[in-house]
Amino acid sequence: MSRRILVINPNASLACTRGIAAALAPLPLPPGLALEVTRLAEGPPAIASWEDWHSVALPLCGLVEREPAAAYVIACVSDPGLEAVRAATRRPVLGMFRCAVAAAVTRAERFGIIGFVAASQPRQRRALQAMGLEARLAAWEPLDLPMEVLCEPEAPRGRIAAAARRLAEQGAETIILGCTGLAGHAALVAEASGLPVIEPCEAAGAMALLAAMRP
Amino acid sequence: MSRRILVINPNASLACTRGIAAALAPLPLPPGLALEVTRLAEGPPAIASWEDWHSVALPLCGLVEREPAAAYVIACVSDPGLEAVRAATRRPVLGMFRCAVAAAVTRAERFGIIGFVAASQPRQRRALQAMGLEARLAAWEPLDLPMEVLCEPEAPRGRIAAAARRLAEQGAETIILGCTGLAGHAALVAEASGLPVIEPCEAAGAMALLAAMRP
Amino acid sequence: MSRRILVINPNASLACTRGIAAALAPLPLPPGLALEVTRLAEGPPAIASWEDWHSVALPLCGLVEREPAAAYVIACVSDPGLEAVRAATRRPVLGMFRCAVAAAVTRAERFGIIGFVAASQPRQRRALQAMGLEARLAAWEPLDLPMEVLCEPEAPRGRIAAAARRLAEQGAETIILGCTGLAGHAALVAEASGLPVIEPCEAAGAMALLAAMRP
Amino acid sequence: MSRRILVINPNASLACTRGIAAALAPLPLPPGLALEVTRLAEGPPAIASWEDWHSVALPLCGLVEREPAAAYVIACVSDPGLEAVRAATRRPVLGMFRCAVAAAVTRAERFGIIGFVAASQPRQRRALQAMGLEARLAAWEPLDLPMEVLCEPEAPRGRIAAAARRLAEQGAETIILGCTGLAGHAALVAEASGLPVIEPCEAAGAMALLAAMRP
Amino acid sequence: MSRRILVINPNASLACTRGIAAALAPLPLPPGLALEVTRLAEGPPAIASWEDWHSVALPLCGLVEREPAAAYVIACVSDPGLEAVRAATRRPVLGMFRCAVAAAVTRAERFGIIGFVAASQPRQRRALQAMGLEARLAAWEPLDLPMEVLCEPEAPRGRIAAAARRLAEQGAETIILGCTGLAGHAALVAEASGLPVIEPCEAAGAMALLAAMRP
Amino acid sequence: MSRRILVINPNASLACTRGIAAALAPLPLPPGLALEVTRLAEGPPAIASWEDWHSVALPLCGLVEREPAAAYVIACVSDPGLEAVRAATRRPVLGMFRCAVAAAVTRAERFGIIGFVAASQPRQRRALQAMGLEARLAAWEPLDLPMEVLCEPEAPRGRIAAAARRLAEQGAETIILGCTGLAGHAALVAEASGLPVIEPCEAAGAMALLAAMRP
Repeated sequence: MSRRILVINPNASLACTRGIAAALAPLPLPPGLALEVTRLAEGPPAIASWEDWHSVALPLCGLVEREPAAAYVIACVSDPGLEAVRAATRRPVLGMFRCAVAAAVTRAERFGIIGFVAASQPRQRRALQAMGLEARLAAWEPLDLPMEVLCEPEAPRGRIAAAARRLAEQGAETIILGCTGLAGHAALVAEASGLPVIEPCEAAGAMALLAAMRP
Repeated sequence: MSRRILVINPNASLACTRGIAAALAPLPLPPGLALEVTRLAEGPPAIASWEDWHSVALPLCGLVEREPAAAYVIACVSDPGLEAVRAATRRPVLGMFRCAVAAAVTRAERFGIIGFVAASQPRQRRALQAMGLEARLAAWEPLDLPMEVLCEPEAPRGRIAAAARRLAEQGAETIILGCTGLAGHAALVAEASGLPVIEPCEAAGAMALLAAMRP
Repeated sequence: MSRRILVINPNASLACTRGIAAALAPLPLPPGLALEVTRLAEGPPAIASWEDWHSVALPLCGLVEREPAAAYVIACVSDPGLEAVRAATRRPVLGMFRCAVAAAVTRAERFGIIGFVAASQPRQRRALQAMGLEARLAAWEPLDLPMEVLCEPEAPRGRIAAAARRLAEQGAETIILGCTGLAGHAALVAEASGLPVIEPCEAAGAMALLAAMRP
Repeated sequence: MSRRILVINPNASLACTRGIAAALAPLPLPPGLALEVTRLAEGPPAIASWEDWHSVALPLCGLVEREPAAAYVIACVSDPGLEAVRAATRRPVLGMFRCAVAAAVTRAERFGIIGFVAASQPRQRRALQAMGLEARLAAWEPLDLPMEVLCEPEAPRGRIAAAARRLAEQGAETIILGCTGLAGHAALVAEASGLPVIEPCEAAGAMALLAAMRP
Repeated sequence: MSRRILVINPNASLACTRGIAAALAPLPLPPGLALEVTRLAEGPPAIASWEDWHSVALPLCGLVEREPAAAYVIACVSDPGLEAVRAATRRPVLGMFRCAVAAAVTRAERFGIIGFVAASQPRQRRALQAMGLEARLAAWEPLDLPMEVLCEPEAPRGRIAAAARRLAEQGAETIILGCTGLAGHAALVAEASGLPVIEPCEAAGAMALLAAMRP
Repeated sequence: MSRRILVINPNASLACTRGIAAALAPLPLPPGLALEVTRLAEGPPAIASWEDWHSVALPLCGLVEREPAAAYVIACVSDPGLEAVRAATRRPVLGMFRCAVAAAVTRAERFGIIGFVAASQPRQRRALQAMGLEARLAAWEPLDLPMEVLCEPEAPRGRIAAAARRLAEQGAETIILGCTGLAGHAALVAEASGLPVIEPCEAAGAMALLAAMRP
């Protein structure tokens, strides 16, 4: 068995792939196990629509069939192609969003999600339904900012903090960063809301470590 | 902030504490973070009743107040005293059973549980209700074996394999080892059922690592 | 079999015990059946935290083992130690909060709760989950008043009436007084909300009567 | 305000009415409060179909409008006309089935029901849906015996005991006698199942007492 | 087998019956199948209360027994007498409200309902519970207009458009016209909300066509 | 607006496309509205896996963008690409499985499904979750027959009848033919089970008619 966790960014963005790798860099690994972050070169620039979501499923399957690993992570908060990829390998396949939700429910009963744009909510809702946890979503707050603004260090802070506060007011007891671009703002969300914060790359890393350690 | 994960076995058994430590030994840790397994010296020999379950809550709070840590794990599959201990510290506190259930729902939609004795089911049911995941329990199969038989390497294998198969037949898509004494039989359960297996110590270790890495 | 209903206030407050006894005084009893209200002398002044909640479980079991009765009521709206006490006796054991919720659902489909302080909600939520009735809670409104204000006849009336009205606006069809200290304000709540009001001591008394009459 | 609880058998059977009165006879009443059992003279011989169920609603409203009371009980385990009667009076109106279910959930988490004939289950299912408690029904076992056999003291015992045992095997933790004709067999059901038994007349009596005592 | 769909308005209003017939007029029919709209001559002027709702059940059964048809529609948005009528014939019997809800869930996940008056909501809620779809009701907005205003072409437009907008704001993804008098305003609701609109007469017509075509 | 309903078989099978057209042939259409059945020429031979399911989403979008229609039906019982296609057109898009489930819940409270092979269940389960109706699935019985056997007139009858009977025994109150190849066996299923039968092509036809008639 290959001794690596393969984290696959299903979009083609190098910046996004680097962000995922940065978020995963602190994850410790046991001797003999590596973690690699790759991207789907033929993927879309982002998974922003149902068409994007469907389009990456088969390329993901192909990549997994070519690249052996001890465990796989689909590194997008809409878990695209998860079931298809699971059928393409006997090794564990994890969706980053499901990992974040699972981590959230180990910390509290109700979670809120800060999303990138309203249009990404339906795919996350479908994942929550698959997990049986839709009723535990206290609220979903989209930022609706252009990606370039989101990636600046200062510009989006006010909007992010406001979203975090609104989630707390609506009963969230923990907050999931529902967009990989938010990884750098985890401390801000925690401070604004006073709640535990779950970053999906980190959550998926921990879950993949767990899965990869079992033969 | 203390740089350790403190795993607390709420019963006083040294053998049980050693078993937990063994299950957690392979968990990698980042530089500067340690993991320690301790026991509640004043705890009961096992958490086998609701009285036992209540009795450890205050001692656990006391221990947590005395012993600083980056994150705590209550190392018993009935998550005793979880809410009380959470109120006793600002650091994350994780229940081993909730961590196992969370790990299970990252792998499949329905899980089965192999339990030690029928009497331990009601406390696990209460935790599933708190998580909103009671409807995802496909089946719960108790072994109803004496602890000394359970701890032998060969004697309980037939009973364990039969329980694993029954869970698969009833719709389980992953299996949680609902008793820390089963850690050594994970491979047997996987083989008998053909399903992914979640061992609670390992699941809690991964979740604690995730929680401890965030300041 | 002892021919009494034993109502146990799990806190040590004499004033609170007297209030419970006063609320239960109008309950009729059949010939040969008595109702006694007692307190847990070693209990905390109030059940205000998860620590308090756990701390009374074993003393309650001890008291029940020493004091035979036809039926027992745990007279606190967080139902502390209920499962443990049930394991300590073959006679029926009732939790005051569960009795109030049960009475509420015989009157309407959705109920609201006026609570003492926000901190007591999580324990009531857990009881609602155990009953499968969390989705029928229309709203929970805490008073967040100091206990001494709550016990005055006039001072808290404005706050109580406002809470009652907010519950009605949020879809409650009946109101549970979620704090034994509110027993004297039942008429005010009914008038302010226009809704049926359930007082937990009374509800538990009726349920205990039902349980005690069966051999 | 009239100082009586009026229990209305919505069918015209004198035998059935006498049975209800007998079941309620032990209920204690406070000074000044009476309990009367009456029947709907124009009702059908039994509520055995949806037609029967609808047919009694308006006559029940008429009776309630003519006969003042402190509280009303509709004494049939399908709760016919409950909402209509509630609109016909400002006083509390209780359905016997809902009262039995409420009493059951004060005693345990899952209940089973012994029914008269399979045809009566859909109306009880609708009441469980209204209460939000359908998922807590562990099993429903019909006797499917002729009424005259059911009313004999000995003949139906084997069938009743077998139904009680099947409910226990299917996860019931308490048993509701889902037919007023079973009142005389409560002890048998308790013995055969080892579970608490709820008799609907008694449950409704206790709930009516609770409701009638509040002005 | 009779080759007609019989649509029965359970109230006696000729205007209402004509409105139903007008809404159904565009429905195509296969050769040999007719659609007839009739009214319950002995019905109340409208189904506005639980008494009205119960009162039509037996007359509907009688009418269905006298009038053979390939399929029946009960043409009122509270589905009165549905189960009773189903027991009175072996042919399919459809409730107009259930058909509208079913059509809504083929178009989106969450629906809103514009109702006539607040008093009609409880009967629709009961139907949603029977369907298991109560949790998918995003919001229910009553118009609370006098019927004569509702039937004017212009006067109620502002109120209707406002209700449609409020439903969209509360998360409705499709809108059910919860009152047959709204059939003429479907385009207004669609325009004001930007959402698909379901008109119950049309939905029931399509479902009856489906049911009637199967022998 | 184009005046046709476009029914798209997402697989490339001509036989399957002809079967769909045959099932839809009896559907009446209003003057000026046509119904056309087409296939996705580039689709797989059948939608038998998650890869197949994803693979057709983009081609379906492309087809819908090229081919104007008043309403579209995706004619496969796993509703592939439904959300993506909805985003590709402003006209109504219906999934055949969701239409069948919707039709089922207009006829009874619990439905059973006869499926082709066990492997197709997870995609139907996901659709049921999206509809909020997973709890109303009484049972799912796969035939697990080779397609060529399924398409013979006599050979599969025993297996189909047995599946229908098992569904009835497990509480189904109506049966959905969960595979388009079963259309010819509807009468057999009805006879074997004694229950109403829903054929998805017919159900989708009726729903598309409803949707297409509204401008």
